[in-house]
Amino acid sequence: MEFERNQPKDDEVLIDILYCGVCHSDLHQVNNDWKNTIYPCVPGHEIIGKVISTGPAVTKFKQGDVVGIGCMIDSCKHCEPCLEGEEQFCEGPHGQTMTYNGYWKPDPEFNTFGGYSTNIIAQEKFVMSIPSNLEISAAAPILCAGVTTYSPLKHFGVKEGHKVGIIGIGGLGHMGVKIAKAMGASVTAITTKEEKKEQALALGADDVLISEDKKAMEVSANKFDFLLCTIPSPFDVNDYIPLLRRRGALVTVGLLGPYKNPTNNMDVAKFCTTIGGSLIGGTIETQEILDFCAEHQIIPDVELINIEDINEALAKIKDEEVRFRYVIDMASLKS
Amino acid sequence: MEFERNQPKDDEVLIDILYCGVCHSDLHQVNNDWKNTIYPCVPGHEIIGKVISTGPAVTKFKQGDVVGIGCMIDSCKHCEPCLEGEEQFCEGPHGQTMTYNGYWKPDPEFNTFGGYSTNIIAQEKFVMSIPSNLEISAAAPILCAGVTTYSPLKHFGVKEGHKVGIIGIGGLGHMGVKIAKAMGASVTAITTKEEKKEQALALGADDVLISEDKKAMEVSANKFDFLLCTIPSPFDVNDYIPLLRRRGALVTVGLLGPYKNPTNNMDVAKFCTTIGGSLIGGTIETQEILDFCAEHQIIPDVELINIEDINEALAKIKDEEVRFRYVIDMASLKS
Repeated sequence: MEFERNQPKDDEVLIDILYCGVCHSDLHQVNNDWKNTIYPCVPGHEIIGKVISTGPAVTKFKQGDVVGIGCMIDSCKHCEPCLEGEEQFCEGPHGQTMTYNGYWKPDPEFNTFGGYSTNIIAQEKFVMSIPSNLEISAAAPILCAGVTTYSPLKHFGVKEGHKVGIIGIGGLGHMGVKIAKAMGASVTAITTKEEKKEQALALGADDVLISEDKKAMEVSANKFDFLLCTIPSPFDVNDYIPLLRRRGALVTVGLLGPYKNPTNNMDVAKFCTTIGGSLIGGTIETQEILDFCAEHQIIPDVELINIEDINEALAKIKDEEVRFRYVIDMASLKS
Repeated sequence: MEFERNQPKDDEVLIDILYCGVCHSDLHQVNNDWKNTIYPCVPGHEIIGKVISTGPAVTKFKQGDVVGIGCMIDSCKHCEPCLEGEEQFCEGPHGQTMTYNGYWKPDPEFNTFGGYSTNIIAQEKFVMSIPSNLEISAAAPILCAGVTTYSPLKHFGVKEGHKVGIIGIGGLGHMGVKIAKAMGASVTAITTKEEKKEQALALGADDVLISEDKKAMEVSANKFDFLLCTIPSPFDVNDYIPLLRRRGALVTVGLLGPYKNPTNNMDVAKFCTTIGGSLIGGTIETQEILDFCAEHQIIPDVELINIEDINEALAKIKDEEVRFRYVIDMASLKS
């Protein structure tokens, strides 16, 4: 499919796309799982590229800079969340503009096109600097999977001495393991699958807990300060609540819908725990996690694919066969 | 029924009971709602009394002191939670000893007897000082309803500038309104009942939201920093989640069992909120809230009853007819 981007406005940046990560939400969106997809739909919100040109008011970037775009490309920029760099909560009249399938104007026909394309335009505030020591062919997933897992770990204040469990070891979970480990925590990968054990240890996990092993789960009760749950489909949160220590927290970032069963507040109240949810992160946290990954040399485990392999890749994501993130080499679209 | 207490051991205090609050959990316990009641059962864990005598190692109290006993009378005193004054999480071999229906020893026949009696013995650490300017005939509910609502409000850090909603205006909720207000928050009483409006305003609430008024609930969406939910029976927590602002929190203190429906994590994640639970409080927070109530002259709204009226009182609690707490004048048991 061919389409033309507009020319960048005053404060906008035009970017040549080099790499684009394939997020699990791309699969949800193209399948219209959230009943809000406008077709044609061009997914992609883990974008690494080079600046082609900038509008006259742009000061942060110049032609040739290596930059990134995450889940948003614009917002009102005037409300309290926007002023605090938390544009994912934009309270402006049209809210934040998502990188793809986003509404920019109150026009039901309008639909932003994402990173599975040769170039993209974004408002300067939403363009991230890519530190020079980040391997750019692997960095794309930091822009969504990275910030999505970083934000709740940061808000809980994960640090040395904390015992953290990452539930679900896929695209999000594998970043969660690496980031929590770099924050100094003791990290347990919690997975249903015995066969993911070696991979989880290779990611840096200190330990692996198999959630289907009831005895192992009982032994691990009351041991975790923080649980980050990345399971993308409905599950029973009551299975994991007993793992938390007093005043511990579980945050779900994968599931965007109801849990499988009602939460049992007896188990929650008994240790004064909290069950939260989190969604992506704003511009400040997105830049923070790029810098954090560069500093700690956290590199997503990616498999480079060509654009013609995208349907096969999406099928493998659905079947949980990806280890751990596909990234499209956009040279394949241009050639 | 007649029974003999033991003599106070070295570090124990024998107390003549003057007043005892009637908590909603007394009703659950006598009805065996939690399937753990040992009969005969003597309820009562909101106790105000006077010290009769002390063991030789007791240093904090002397004969004649006005004191209080809350939900616990002993614990291991050596584990991390006990050392931090959070004995409700005691990790000792037998856990904390609840004031009634509690196990002191690993003896299934053993069952502590609570405050619906003439006297009681507690370990010194679990005996609270009652500030001299607290009206003792009304102070008893602070020992459970007070600390149960205070603890989550304190842990969230409720302060001036916060908008707090107290859901359910009964024994716990009426204390929640008073305490949140004294912490400086703007407080909305959230109730299903239009007829509780005037009473809630009289308690000090700035505003009243009727939860059955769908339009009013929609208008209040995304407005609250903190919601304290005191509804004692299963309810749909999804009805209240949309009221929270970004990074806001809802804590349920009334319900000790599953919610009515699975929590929708889309609504939770959208504003990065948390849904927590909380249960009573430890010795440090119990003394804190007694001192806080004395300082701010927070007096529970109580109705004094005689011991012979207890069955009628429990029936009225069940029918939500109490405004807002019955307190037994224990002189009626002695006469």
